[in-house]
Amino acid sequence: MERKAEDFARQQREISISEFFEKNRHLLGYDNKVKALLMIVKEGVDNALDATEEAGILPDIYIRVKEVKNERYEIIIKDNGPGIVKKQIPRIFGKLLYGSKFHRLKQNRGQQGIGISAATLYTQLTTGEPLEIVSSTGDGKTHKYRIKINVRRNEPLIIDSGIEEGVDWRGVQLRFLTEGLYREYKQSILEYLKQTAISNPHARIVFDSPNGRTEFRRGVESLPKEPKEIRPHLHGVELGILTRMLRETKARTLLSFLTGEFTKVGRKTAKEICSKAEMEENKKPKSVKDEDARKLLEVIKDVKLLKPPTDCLSPLGNEVVKEGLRKELNPEWVESITRPPEVYRGWPFQVECGLAYGGSIQEPKFMRFANRVPLLYQQGDCAITKSVTGIDWRRYKINGKRIPEEPLAIFVHLVSVWVPFTSESKEAIASYPVIIKEIKLAIQECARKLGLYLSGKRKHEYHQHRIRTFERYAEETIKALSELSEEDRERVKREFLELINSNNNKITEEENGGAKEAEKPGEERDGPDREERKSKDRASRQVTLERLLR
Amino acid sequence: MERKAEDFARQQREISISEFFEKNRHLLGYDNKVKALLMIVKEGVDNALDATEEAGILPDIYIRVKEVKNERYEIIIKDNGPGIVKKQIPRIFGKLLYGSKFHRLKQNRGQQGIGISAATLYTQLTTGEPLEIVSSTGDGKTHKYRIKINVRRNEPLIIDSGIEEGVDWRGVQLRFLTEGLYREYKQSILEYLKQTAISNPHARIVFDSPNGRTEFRRGVESLPKEPKEIRPHLHGVELGILTRMLRETKARTLLSFLTGEFTKVGRKTAKEICSKAEMEENKKPKSVKDEDARKLLEVIKDVKLLKPPTDCLSPLGNEVVKEGLRKELNPEWVESITRPPEVYRGWPFQVECGLAYGGSIQEPKFMRFANRVPLLYQQGDCAITKSVTGIDWRRYKINGKRIPEEPLAIFVHLVSVWVPFTSESKEAIASYPVIIKEIKLAIQECARKLGLYLSGKRKHEYHQHRIRTFERYAEETIKALSELSEEDRERVKREFLELINSNNNKITEEENGGAKEAEKPGEERDGPDREERKSKDRASRQVTLERLLR
Repeated sequence: MERKAEDFARQQREISISEFFEKNRHLLGYDNKVKALLMIVKEGVDNALDATEEAGILPDIYIRVKEVKNERYEIIIKDNGPGIVKKQIPRIFGKLLYGSKFHRLKQNRGQQGIGISAATLYTQLTTGEPLEIVSSTGDGKTHKYRIKINVRRNEPLIIDSGIEEGVDWRGVQLRFLTEGLYREYKQSILEYLKQTAISNPHARIVFDSPNGRTEFRRGVESLPKEPKEIRPHLHGVELGILTRMLRETKARTLLSFLTGEFTKVGRKTAKEICSKAEMEENKKPKSVKDEDARKLLEVIKDVKLLKPPTDCLSPLGNEVVKEGLRKELNPEWVESITRPPEVYRGWPFQVECGLAYGGSIQEPKFMRFANRVPLLYQQGDCAITKSVTGIDWRRYKINGKRIPEEPLAIFVHLVSVWVPFTSESKEAIASYPVIIKEIKLAIQECARKLGLYLSGKRKHEYHQHRIRTFERYAEETIKALSELSEEDRERVKREFLELINSNNNKITEEENGGAKEAEKPGEERDGPDREERKSKDRASRQVTLERLLR
Repeated sequence: MERKAEDFARQQREISISEFFEKNRHLLGYDNKVKALLMIVKEGVDNALDATEEAGILPDIYIRVKEVKNERYEIIIKDNGPGIVKKQIPRIFGKLLYGSKFHRLKQNRGQQGIGISAATLYTQLTTGEPLEIVSSTGDGKTHKYRIKINVRRNEPLIIDSGIEEGVDWRGVQLRFLTEGLYREYKQSILEYLKQTAISNPHARIVFDSPNGRTEFRRGVESLPKEPKEIRPHLHGVELGILTRMLRETKARTLLSFLTGEFTKVGRKTAKEICSKAEMEENKKPKSVKDEDARKLLEVIKDVKLLKPPTDCLSPLGNEVVKEGLRKELNPEWVESITRPPEVYRGWPFQVECGLAYGGSIQEPKFMRFANRVPLLYQQGDCAITKSVTGIDWRRYKINGKRIPEEPLAIFVHLVSVWVPFTSESKEAIASYPVIIKEIKLAIQECARKLGLYLSGKRKHEYHQHRIRTFERYAEETIKALSELSEEDRERVKREFLELINSNNNKITEEENGGAKEAEKPGEERDGPDREERKSKDRASRQVTLERLLR
């Protein structure tokens, strides 16, 4: 039996974004109970760090995870941030796709306006409980809300709200009552907080877990450089977005539109664009037709423009990376590299990499970060992983074909005004070729240094081994020499040991020379000074031996 | 300088789902120009197949991809489906999260209400051009629309529309003008259509590519079994969804709510649930409080329920899988398995697997399908891939540790009323443990059969090799035997070759016996009949040889 178009028409309906993610909660990272707890803590802490930083406050964050019933947990996250004004509270926590960070280009932890409301959504889906929010902006009033989400409409549902006067504090406290499972696996809340402490040494974080308290103290007493908000870059703008910007701008002329809405476009460049596109500089942006916008974009492709400004990015910097790795892993060797900023789709980004070797490190460790947030899941899908496995590690004297098989920690951090995540759960970075290229260059630069260190270290170990073998027979040899030469035994011993030592020193010098040589293969190994010193050494040793064997 | 909560409040804004995906277009699969063309064709063809099938029409689909300018393509997709009623056209193609398939549980290709509007979104983003839709429901009127999306509001923007009377056809034709790049790589439109033809042998598909026409003829003249829409299963329902269903139901009593809104809940079971939860059967569903709903769910956990019905699923079936693999790959061996249905999160699903070996297959080939749609990207992230790499292939005499290194094609198809994809681009299946388990069991069952075939084949090859060696010296031996026995040379030759042949047949018999043995290790290899036959053979050969050497 054939069915008609009219039958199908009746079933057509709008789908709210809340409904969509309720059914597809694995897209938001809520695939299982262990991960669910991590996701909720992560959204809360990331928001707290964003808020305190933007308000210029050194963050002080308290987290408590407590099992109240079998597989049911109370999660409290409290910060000392600027607080949230009353009327914004319901929508920030009870409406997906609502926020302050999506419509601007700024390096932030959050960017989508989904995360914290998704935590509310998961909570009510599993336990039916609302999220409790307590907030004060420091004006002596504390607002308290209990909120759910009206899933069909994607709007906040206020269960109740209240106000308390005369309380002297400032910040936000969230209280979730959710289904979950607390485990201290590799990808746990504890690991997330440990890595967060490395990438946010200016934060103090206290965590009361079901297994006890962990405190992460502040490592530095100042906030990181504040990243600036930027305007989009003309070379990355797509036609659909350009036409919308033309329609929505407040600029009255095409010229002021170009100079005002985009970064690095001066009057001269704007005039050049208008003239090449054969368009009036004074044309009203709203009157630019679709074909004209297309022409404009054609012209822009061939106009030289400065790269976007880089003060919009705030990487950790080499010292913070190295200090973090030292503090956390206690390695015998550590190095770090910060690459210059680059651009994808018109958006600036920057990569930094740290390597730490040996010491307390027992096995390969791999840490990924985006805008100071540790990424714990979906490792295989991430541009950082693809970069690591794309490197031939043996070129740097590091064992392992695609992945290093050494006590080596790899730390990679990408900052950007818009991080391209592979899913709404923000666990992996999408593989734009220019991003892969930058990550690879950063890792390779560090790996080269590690290679030099390792080749020196291995040479040294080899010689140490030889000397130890020699020393094992020293007593015998001294005895024989003393008898043959009829010299005093103590004196023979002294000179003999001196000899070994001088040999040892010489090897150490050679190692340093060897390392230098590896770095600059063209340079001559033995300068005249050195040669002279060496022949002197040789001569003096000859004398000693002759005397001994005389 | 500290900033205040008030400063931040001003920046808070709603984000439309269109804006979200415009900025995150890689989430929808639009990462690059080659893939963009595939995505558009795929959305169009999947919709056409869904529509024709649901309307009970044998699909006849025409696709044309034509380069109109450098990296600018015209894509036409035309079907013979039921058409779309006039007033639905704009929203179906010009609004994300709008459709007929999200709110029901039915095995469909589409399910999200995103795909085809995403194609419109990408087109207008890259070329600024609207999508042109021509549709007729077969009533003699043809409606034509040109549509864009108002991204800020996620609403369709009708550029123009018209109507033509007296045209005798029925169906939908789409015309995109998009940026892209046509390549016939591994993951191309052509490959997608090839695989689509395998999983939809009832469809006729004609594809005019920039490189010429390819036609996929109908393999069967009947539509697949129509999958039924089902109601949710109580054991999969989550608290948040239960409370919403209680609020929205038209049922007047709790009893009729339970029996009417869920699958496999009879009056007896419903009564049992009410009594265990200590709730009135006649209670109005709307008056059930949150705590009561929680109690209801607690009780439901322990109530025995029948599994969901399986007529909601329509797998291809063994014959179609095998025929498809034979037609497409021309292998020397093929086998297929359909598993019984299973359930995840309350939703039924079913797995079928086909293996094809040798013949025209040159290298390992891997085909993934979900609800008859081929999955070409994000292979590493897919539950099917994880199942394949989780199998120890050597156990089945197949070379390769995690991935078979043989001329072997692996075909896996998952059907479900709701396929859990890992992203909106629907390229990989999420790794629910029960799904992985079912896929593994299906593959292993096929692999076992392939193992038997391969061990027989290898034994046969070994013996053939031995016989060939023997035959190489046959002439010499015959000559010598004839001279020694003074028998006629032609007679010696005849008897000698008979002997080789009988030996050959015997080996073939043994192989079959061997294969049987492998299947049932407990069974005795040589029955009395067989033993008898063997000794007869041996005796007759003895006679011949004796005669020859007499």
